[in-house]
Amino acid sequence: MTLPHKTSATLADGREIHFYDDVAGREHKAVDTRVLPPVESGSELRWDPTTEEWVVMAAHRKARTADTTAQCPLCPSSDAAATEIPAGDYDVAVFENRYPALRGAGSDPHPGSTSLTVPAGGRCEVMVFGSEHETSLARMPEQRVRTVIEAWADRTEVLNALPDVEQVVCFENRGNEIGATLAHPHGQIYAYPFMPSRFERMQRAARHAHARGAGCVFCSVLETELSAGHRIVARSPHWTAFVPHAARWPYEVHLYANRHVPDLAALTAEERADLADSYRSLLRRFETVTEAPLPYMALWIQAPARGERDHSHLHAQVFSDRATPLKPKRLAAGELGAGTFISEVEPEQAAAALRAAETWTAAGPLAA
Amino acid sequence: MTLPHKTSATLADGREIHFYDDVAGREHKAVDTRVLPPVESGSELRWDPTTEEWVVMAAHRKARTADTTAQCPLCPSSDAAATEIPAGDYDVAVFENRYPALRGAGSDPHPGSTSLTVPAGGRCEVMVFGSEHETSLARMPEQRVRTVIEAWADRTEVLNALPDVEQVVCFENRGNEIGATLAHPHGQIYAYPFMPSRFERMQRAARHAHARGAGCVFCSVLETELSAGHRIVARSPHWTAFVPHAARWPYEVHLYANRHVPDLAALTAEERADLADSYRSLLRRFETVTEAPLPYMALWIQAPARGERDHSHLHAQVFSDRATPLKPKRLAAGELGAGTFISEVEPEQAAAALRAAETWTAAGPLAA
Repeated sequence: MTLPHKTSATLADGREIHFYDDVAGREHKAVDTRVLPPVESGSELRWDPTTEEWVVMAAHRKARTADTTAQCPLCPSSDAAATEIPAGDYDVAVFENRYPALRGAGSDPHPGSTSLTVPAGGRCEVMVFGSEHETSLARMPEQRVRTVIEAWADRTEVLNALPDVEQVVCFENRGNEIGATLAHPHGQIYAYPFMPSRFERMQRAARHAHARGAGCVFCSVLETELSAGHRIVARSPHWTAFVPHAARWPYEVHLYANRHVPDLAALTAEERADLADSYRSLLRRFETVTEAPLPYMALWIQAPARGERDHSHLHAQVFSDRATPLKPKRLAAGELGAGTFISEVEPEQAAAALRAAETWTAAGPLAA
Repeated sequence: MTLPHKTSATLADGREIHFYDDVAGREHKAVDTRVLPPVESGSELRWDPTTEEWVVMAAHRKARTADTTAQCPLCPSSDAAATEIPAGDYDVAVFENRYPALRGAGSDPHPGSTSLTVPAGGRCEVMVFGSEHETSLARMPEQRVRTVIEAWADRTEVLNALPDVEQVVCFENRGNEIGATLAHPHGQIYAYPFMPSRFERMQRAARHAHARGAGCVFCSVLETELSAGHRIVARSPHWTAFVPHAARWPYEVHLYANRHVPDLAALTAEERADLADSYRSLLRRFETVTEAPLPYMALWIQAPARGERDHSHLHAQVFSDRATPLKPKRLAAGELGAGTFISEVEPEQAAAALRAAETWTAAGPLAA
């Protein structure tokens, strides 16, 4: 397996930045010329003893960059303006968030008192998918998606090794409508110092399945979906995309590794190459299944940094909160208070629509 | 304790309707003159084995009434138009939802196969807080809030007794922005045939606290908040309103019964009277804390229909997804995919703002 073509540097305030290139041999010698104040987090974790979950308090994040047409902080630096990325051109760049919700070591949170508060350790990184502002990951060449996968795998390994990190989550919020504060194609990586509650649920379910002798719950789901067939969106030698039987969202697809594998770092070169094609095709379906690209949320379910890593089964979850671009599913007391989802879209119909969707972008086929 | 002043009748399609009056002796002899097709639910529960939770599939609900200026289905019937309420005037009316997500018996869901699907039993009711269209529960006379409490308590007892009901949840989505499809002041009651996942979390936390000899986790929280003081919003002889230490939402208040009591039905007359004042004051704070009324979600945490009822501690959770009326907190992959909330509002500041908010409505004091 080839290593990613990676160069590391430091921003003016000491934050790390890493460049992952599509091809070997590129140089990144630009220097961050800005004068920046030190990054301060000041976030804290507060324990809710009535639900046994942590909430991150990050009041300082109110100051973060809003989307402005003036200067995108993810575009390449120019003579006129220095951005977060001190390079004229780049493929994939990953840097520490300037307004991190999680930062540093020192929080090894263990539930205790009723009003427990600890500093919010961990790490928040931004992954820029390319230097071009007006595009999307779905529209990029396949090689770029491959580089993104290499970067995800590398960051997952590096962040898993940090002290006190419990779970690394690579994700993308695509579309201003659903909370992406910047339009430039990018994702994020959170290294949580605690187990996020939906990951905890999945790990519990996996543990229960093992305990009753049923093996890997995700392998069982995959087998069931392959037999049923009518919720499958796409298959490839190493990947299967399907709308889950109990989908919570109008459009929701899970992309499972066909092999029981804990995380992106454990994938073979062949599996990675296949993933670049499979993942890009999936994102393209979200761009073409309706009259305009659907905003979406995507995240990778990977093994925890330590603990029951063998119970995990690598997969991506990609979902949109809406069946049409302008009409979001509104979440109210049932979903947000009680935690119960009611879906008005049949998963089988969503699967049929996604199967039929073009896997080329609306702008037409791109060079792969 | 006086019983609620209650009259029951039947709508044209056989659904139950119940009138709860502010004073004794009113008559409700109107008859539903409409010709209605039978109510069909067709909902199903689908089990997600990877998170161990049920998702309700209710495709038929897409057809339900949208907010129209033409005819509000919750306004009184008139000679010109028959609505859901066949009465010229009423205080509180509760009827079965015409487009129920949950309906009937027969679903006693126990997790089994990977793609388990069962009919969605249970019940969905609509509670109309009054015949006036252009107002809010916060602006109603205290006696009306008292009647609403009596109706909640009565419906909780009745629905808890239905076979296969696991958890009754009384809730209100106030404001079109957050998913209320009708503007007329109303709430809803869902009798779930399974345990909603956030209730399950709270019950688990309560069970853990008991197991380690710490007693009721909610009593501990109340004690902690009373000692700390700076998150208290209001106190009365029987109720305490506070912003929780680990609040997930920009404005979030929990209103706890000072006494360890499992549900609304178990409250004394004195506690109910005090609640009418305390609850209305709390809702008024959500109407006055910003320049315009905040949309909010409210729900009651009550004991399950059966099981560990002694572990429950009655409280309401009232929260808004926004710190200002026009700027909602956008939920994205972190919250919806990983289940982790990041708040940018300090609970102590929210508590101070809510404490200082007028408990009279913006329209001025109302007769109590």
